Amino acid sequence: MGTSYFGDLIETIVMRGQGLLARARELGGRGAARAELVELAEALLSRRGEASGVALAGEILAALEAAEPAARAAFLRSLASQFGADGDRLRGAVEAWSTEPGPRAEIALHLAAEPRRQELFRRLNLAPGGTAALVALRGELLDMLDDDAALEAVDADFAHLFASWFNRGFLVLRRIDWSTPANILEKIIAYEAVHEIRDWNDLRNRLEPPDRRCFAFFHPQLIDEPLIFVEIALTPAIPDAIEPLLDLGRAPVPAREVTTATFYSISNCQKGLRGISFGNFLIKQVVEELKREMPQLATFATLSPVPGFAAWLARAAAAAPPVLTPDDAAAVTALDAEEPAPAPDAARSALLRRLAARYFLTARTASGRPLDPVARFHLGNGASLHRINVDADLSAKGRRQSHAVMVNYLYDLESIEANHEAYAETGEVVADAAIRKLLDAPAGRRRRKPAA
Amino acid sequence: MGTSYFGDLIETIVMRGQGLLARARELGGRGAARAELVELAEALLSRRGEASGVALAGEILAALEAAEPAARAAFLRSLASQFGADGDRLRGAVEAWSTEPGPRAEIALHLAAEPRRQELFRRLNLAPGGTAALVALRGELLDMLDDDAALEAVDADFAHLFASWFNRGFLVLRRIDWSTPANILEKIIAYEAVHEIRDWNDLRNRLEPPDRRCFAFFHPQLIDEPLIFVEIALTPAIPDAIEPLLDLGRAPVPAREVTTATFYSISNCQKGLRGISFGNFLIKQVVEELKREMPQLATFATLSPVPGFAAWLARAAAAAPPVLTPDDAAAVTALDAEEPAPAPDAARSALLRRLAARYFLTARTASGRPLDPVARFHLGNGASLHRINVDADLSAKGRRQSHAVMVNYLYDLESIEANHEAYAETGEVVADAAIRKLLDAPAGRRRRKPAA
Amino acid sequence: MGTSYFGDLIETIVMRGQGLLARARELGGRGAARAELVELAEALLSRRGEASGVALAGEILAALEAAEPAARAAFLRSLASQFGADGDRLRGAVEAWSTEPGPRAEIALHLAAEPRRQELFRRLNLAPGGTAALVALRGELLDMLDDDAALEAVDADFAHLFASWFNRGFLVLRRIDWSTPANILEKIIAYEAVHEIRDWNDLRNRLEPPDRRCFAFFHPQLIDEPLIFVEIALTPAIPDAIEPLLDLGRAPVPAREVTTATFYSISNCQKGLRGISFGNFLIKQVVEELKREMPQLATFATLSPVPGFAAWLARAAAAAPPVLTPDDAAAVTALDAEEPAPAPDAARSALLRRLAARYFLTARTASGRPLDPVARFHLGNGASLHRINVDADLSAKGRRQSHAVMVNYLYDLESIEANHEAYAETGEVVADAAIRKLLDAPAGRRRRKPAA
Amino acid sequence: MGTSYFGDLIETIVMRGQGLLARARELGGRGAARAELVELAEALLSRRGEASGVALAGEILAALEAAEPAARAAFLRSLASQFGADGDRLRGAVEAWSTEPGPRAEIALHLAAEPRRQELFRRLNLAPGGTAALVALRGELLDMLDDDAALEAVDADFAHLFASWFNRGFLVLRRIDWSTPANILEKIIAYEAVHEIRDWNDLRNRLEPPDRRCFAFFHPQLIDEPLIFVEIALTPAIPDAIEPLLDLGRAPVPAREVTTATFYSISNCQKGLRGISFGNFLIKQVVEELKREMPQLATFATLSPVPGFAAWLARAAAAAPPVLTPDDAAAVTALDAEEPAPAPDAARSALLRRLAARYFLTARTASGRPLDPVARFHLGNGASLHRINVDADLSAKGRRQSHAVMVNYLYDLESIEANHEAYAETGEVVADAAIRKLLDAPAGRRRRKPAA
Repeated sequence: MGTSYFGDLIETIVMRGQGLLARARELGGRGAARAELVELAEALLSRRGEASGVALAGEILAALEAAEPAARAAFLRSLASQFGADGDRLRGAVEAWSTEPGPRAEIALHLAAEPRRQELFRRLNLAPGGTAALVALRGELLDMLDDDAALEAVDADFAHLFASWFNRGFLVLRRIDWSTPANILEKIIAYEAVHEIRDWNDLRNRLEPPDRRCFAFFHPQLIDEPLIFVEIALTPAIPDAIEPLLDLGRAPVPAREVTTATFYSISNCQKGLRGISFGNFLIKQVVEELKREMPQLATFATLSPVPGFAAWLARAAAAAPPVLTPDDAAAVTALDAEEPAPAPDAARSALLRRLAARYFLTARTASGRPLDPVARFHLGNGASLHRINVDADLSAKGRRQSHAVMVNYLYDLESIEANHEAYAETGEVVADAAIRKLLDAPAGRRRRKPAA
Repeated sequence: MGTSYFGDLIETIVMRGQGLLARARELGGRGAARAELVELAEALLSRRGEASGVALAGEILAALEAAEPAARAAFLRSLASQFGADGDRLRGAVEAWSTEPGPRAEIALHLAAEPRRQELFRRLNLAPGGTAALVALRGELLDMLDDDAALEAVDADFAHLFASWFNRGFLVLRRIDWSTPANILEKIIAYEAVHEIRDWNDLRNRLEPPDRRCFAFFHPQLIDEPLIFVEIALTPAIPDAIEPLLDLGRAPVPAREVTTATFYSISNCQKGLRGISFGNFLIKQVVEELKREMPQLATFATLSPVPGFAAWLARAAAAAPPVLTPDDAAAVTALDAEEPAPAPDAARSALLRRLAARYFLTARTASGRPLDPVARFHLGNGASLHRINVDADLSAKGRRQSHAVMVNYLYDLESIEANHEAYAETGEVVADAAIRKLLDAPAGRRRRKPAA
Repeated sequence: MGTSYFGDLIETIVMRGQGLLARARELGGRGAARAELVELAEALLSRRGEASGVALAGEILAALEAAEPAARAAFLRSLASQFGADGDRLRGAVEAWSTEPGPRAEIALHLAAEPRRQELFRRLNLAPGGTAALVALRGELLDMLDDDAALEAVDADFAHLFASWFNRGFLVLRRIDWSTPANILEKIIAYEAVHEIRDWNDLRNRLEPPDRRCFAFFHPQLIDEPLIFVEIALTPAIPDAIEPLLDLGRAPVPAREVTTATFYSISNCQKGLRGISFGNFLIKQVVEELKREMPQLATFATLSPVPGFAAWLARAAAAAPPVLTPDDAAAVTALDAEEPAPAPDAARSALLRRLAARYFLTARTASGRPLDPVARFHLGNGASLHRINVDADLSAKGRRQSHAVMVNYLYDLESIEANHEAYAETGEVVADAAIRKLLDAPAGRRRRKPAA
Repeated sequence: MGTSYFGDLIETIVMRGQGLLARARELGGRGAARAELVELAEALLSRRGEASGVALAGEILAALEAAEPAARAAFLRSLASQFGADGDRLRGAVEAWSTEPGPRAEIALHLAAEPRRQELFRRLNLAPGGTAALVALRGELLDMLDDDAALEAVDADFAHLFASWFNRGFLVLRRIDWSTPANILEKIIAYEAVHEIRDWNDLRNRLEPPDRRCFAFFHPQLIDEPLIFVEIALTPAIPDAIEPLLDLGRAPVPAREVTTATFYSISNCQKGLRGISFGNFLIKQVVEELKREMPQLATFATLSPVPGFAAWLARAAAAAPPVLTPDDAAAVTALDAEEPAPAPDAARSALLRRLAARYFLTARTASGRPLDPVARFHLGNGASLHRINVDADLSAKGRRQSHAVMVNYLYDLESIEANHEAYAETGEVVADAAIRKLLDAPAGRRRRKPAA
């Protein structure tokens, strides 16, 4: 009941958000210039902002919305140059802390070092629709970062505030199904980043059958905007290919045959929330939800892409000094030409399996983490690398990025904490024995005579 | 529709909150000791916390809930002593900033000066029901502040985080009426701090009649807990006494006679949110709501208590050197004995009016603000002091704290910004001419011969 | 989701209902006379009614609401005299059916015999708030029935329509708890008919503890009005007295000790729905709900009043020729004087038990059903009489109506159908062997020498 | 609040409905035979039905759902032959009424003439999902009517009950927009009967732009099933062609230019509710809603198809004796060949306009109503025929059924009642003077010399 009560509360937020948009529309073409925007921002930080913060914040956001991209970009640059910490205050706080350190001096220092931007963002958030507008603004900022390193400070402030505002404690998990409002569903179509959703039929095929689930995190202030979502197939075993899962003609798996929840797609939705981590929490809460609904579920696994594999393979084949045996390098070079997908081929399968194991277990970033970003995500969550599947994603994208290889990561609830700790401490990739064995195994003739 | 959709989302939060409570109940008498709590907190800040943050945070909060008060207090003191900023990191950041100042160094300094408590609180907030538990914890902390100044640093961190989490942009305004769930209404009864709500009939009399309104701010994470609420009477004129407004037998004012919205009670609800300012936003948004509903509303005013008046008067009458004329001092001393309320008396009324004007316009705190806390609140919001009403609150509390004097503050939408600025800059009390005149006016014989 | 979607739909109904009230208020004192009301009713049944039915129906209901009671009563009498079946049409249909019987002639006869009132009621129901207004109107009609037998035909039409409109398929079961809106809770207080709810504390004590439940049926058109509700205590055994259940100071029964759901109060709420049967459906659906929530529940029973017992006993003691033994008659006469409740007394307990068994098993109405109305309800639902409890309801009402005796009825899910059939066919009271034995058992000296 | 409260209630209905489906699925292929179904139906009407009505009704509906079509059809025929009125009872009631007529005898007769089917349907409705199942069953029945006139009696009983259950007072108007759940939107696509919705983009183009509205009636028991819906364009004037309204590329009309609400499509959704009239109520309530939202709306009109025009024209051209002049008949015959649409042509336009006027004003059904079904609907609602538009629907369907002619009906709120009455009394087609003039006007040469 308190629930329903609260449900209604939300309406207010929505209404207010629509007000902002309407005001922006009224401003129409009127491009607020950078100078005006800066002046308004200073006003918002001043006494006047205390009295009329909500109205003023709304005005600034509407002006920003209506401004030309160039004016918005200029305003963002002004945030970097003119809205940092107050120099005098900071120097004073450092001096006071040097003279007499201690908790109070620390806090004074912490506050004095806070760029004025942070308070500006907090005050902009007073306006109806403020949070959404700020997230969108950071989205634009991210595009400008490469060209203007000074903006990194602004980005750091956004990230710091958003980490607090989008704390997992404020997020709400919600099932997405075929009775979800269409305006949210169309965002699921738009945001799906792993296996493209071609149309509403494809979408429906992922949501409506009784053996499918989809969950998303929402934030009370971004009412119609999923933050991240995951698509799940309930299966009789851990699947080894994506096409059968997405087949429009397939028959649903009867509930009594289901043993496994397979996470086959996970997509972040809000560019402006880049770096704010939701995926780990999402997967773990979804696991809890599914276990509550279906206590018979014994296995939680993924069917995941290997986005960096083909590129690494190509580099490895061409590397000097060589990192692959000549035979392997030749085979890899041959692979590239094998579009479209050839008939299944035992030798090719063995080759891909072996090299994929090597990719996961040995290829590292400069900071010593696995090269594959999806691997970093799941291993960082405490999952283990469970199985390498060849001929698993025969789509153009799948063949291009990984020669159709996919992998399963396993979320073994008993091992998650230990796996995570091992990975975090040492970068260890916890992998199934069968995969580790691929690394050691003799690679036919090629491996026996590496120096040949 | 998105609205309804989201309404449902909230359910999850509620469910999770109940889980926390249940776990605490399971722990039952098991008093977690300080040392255990500190160890868990360190774990939450460690790698393990990254993997199992939600579960670990829930465990700590449940252990805290189940712990003895002494253990909780000890834990809070440990937060002060052991969870400040990392000293080495801070020294390094100060050095780096001294060597090469600039945005990046500032941010590094800002982050290094952040006490570890803040990240601890953010991680505790991951747990279901985390926000409510943290607000309650600060409530306990506030009681300990007087005895242990070291806790002020902990309090500052709470306040900093809460100001961000309870940003007005995240609050939801909600009308409270007779169809509000009973578990929320009983909190309105409990939290009313100005004119006590005696029972459910009294409550109903303030909510159900068509000429009454009540609004509260809620936060999505404190689902059944109002943060602040205001009670409003729709009246034909600005009222000059509270009893007729609260009379159980009164007839509602017909809608066509309503010209004025009178805010006659405003109460903060959450001790743990002390110092996080909601009242200003609440009043202004309620004014907007009411104008939308009833465009005919011309006046927005309060009928407010004067909590500091009687005490100031007693001090003034006894002050040496004298600040009142001997006649006034004698009259004031006589006043104190006048319980219960005497019949209306013109001379007494004139005296109270005159001295109340002096109280509002001249009595100041050390920092130069008006002595009366309610005055500081409304003047700080940009209202003006509109009228002094004698014999306005004849309840025991009213006579005790202000000799039954009440005042009206006026929210004149055109003047709010200017009023606020005048008050904020110079501490000027914007008051009606008739009140200012009381200050200048000859005080009968007594004033003419002050030296006599 | 469709759920939430639909939740919103309901709003429209509510809004419309409020419109009706407002219009009635506008009409104010204007008492529409009987003649006007009849004229409007004829208009609603005419062509004009087809074009403007909703508006016209609203007008009639508002006029009725605003009319003097005498005018409303006169209108009800006109419904009896002027809105019966169309005589010519009916005669024609009878003739046609006599000439050529068959399905079509039957239907034509059925329709021709339908009083015009029924179509009038259906058209009045077009108006916003129409259903509630018609239910209230029948409530008034029921009060007039004793004085005017002609109104029985009108009542029969109401009952026929309401049985269709309030078909169990259109009702919604809803839990009532402490987060239910106050305007519904105050109706629970008002409508409780078995064990009076003294105030909001008493109410809360029946709703909030974890070992209490309350459920009500609602109808989509009577939005804030429960139709019937039942109060339930979760107990470790079938209870034998009411006071411990309602004790404000009692400790809740821990969930692990609960084995039994005890229905201790069931109240109809809408006078205007008299004779429309909800109780049977309510109890059975609540049993289903509770079993879903708590599979460990093994027993479903009631703790019920025996409203007719004391009156029957008094009549029996005074009957000529005697139906009780002289000793029993003397003891019963002595009982009447025993207010307030005496200390427990084995002989008195045995007497009450024995005579109560006789009351339940032998006392019959003219039509051969048990005399006790509560017994008729539960036995008719398929329950059995399980146990007689003396000193079970020591309230003034309990002692007055049944010398503090209460009984338990048992809902044994396996036996409900057979019990119902036995009861419906032969009027057999299915009772526990121990109760049947009381009837046969020698009644001490009195029974052995009945003629003495 | 009561609203939200109630919103939740609905959930129960939905849940129960899903239960029915699940049970049907369990029964799987097991085809219940006619005899079994009849036996179950008799049980439901017996004493056993009183005790276990909900369960038994659910069982029958599940068995019906799982039965072969032939078994279901046989069962429907049994309803006609075995579940009519009880002959003895009916004869008795007729006799009693003949002997002593009066209200009681009438009611007894009414009840005795009621086919047992009606009580059977009411009891089937006890089951979760019962209403939907009964509506679907009547849908099947309607398909069998042509072949078996005996089923008409069954159909009449369905219609009688449904008219009561789907009384406009129980319906809820709901806006359909782009945030409506997808499972409802896909039904809008499926049920659109006037201008086919090609895909989700087409749908969105009719729902999302600010100058579009769509409303539907729902019934609380058919939770996800619209009963009827209407699509509306907000326009600067009454439009004269459909294609510009449905153009995917068009720009929305700015709010300040809107003067007219154009109802351009209205579709019934539930075959099983044929003959239960919703459209009249829908249009009138939508007019109210729109006026509340946009008080500036001055005109409410339709843009409607003329489904019977081309067929009538063809018949008229071929009629013997001739009803058209030879020139007209020749022109009409030429028309038929003019596919695809020719360039606009003044003579052809004048011809179509003139003959359409004649079609509307003179072509009648056997019972004297206008031949055009859409005309009957709108004129019966009290609208008037406002304008004839040639080249208005150039789709294949539009040209085929009406040579691309469409018309506007005008809902002039002041005249609705009078229009309706005129139409209902005399069948008068209230048409704009310009249309009536077309009838009288000289038809160029052809009209001046009809005999030539």
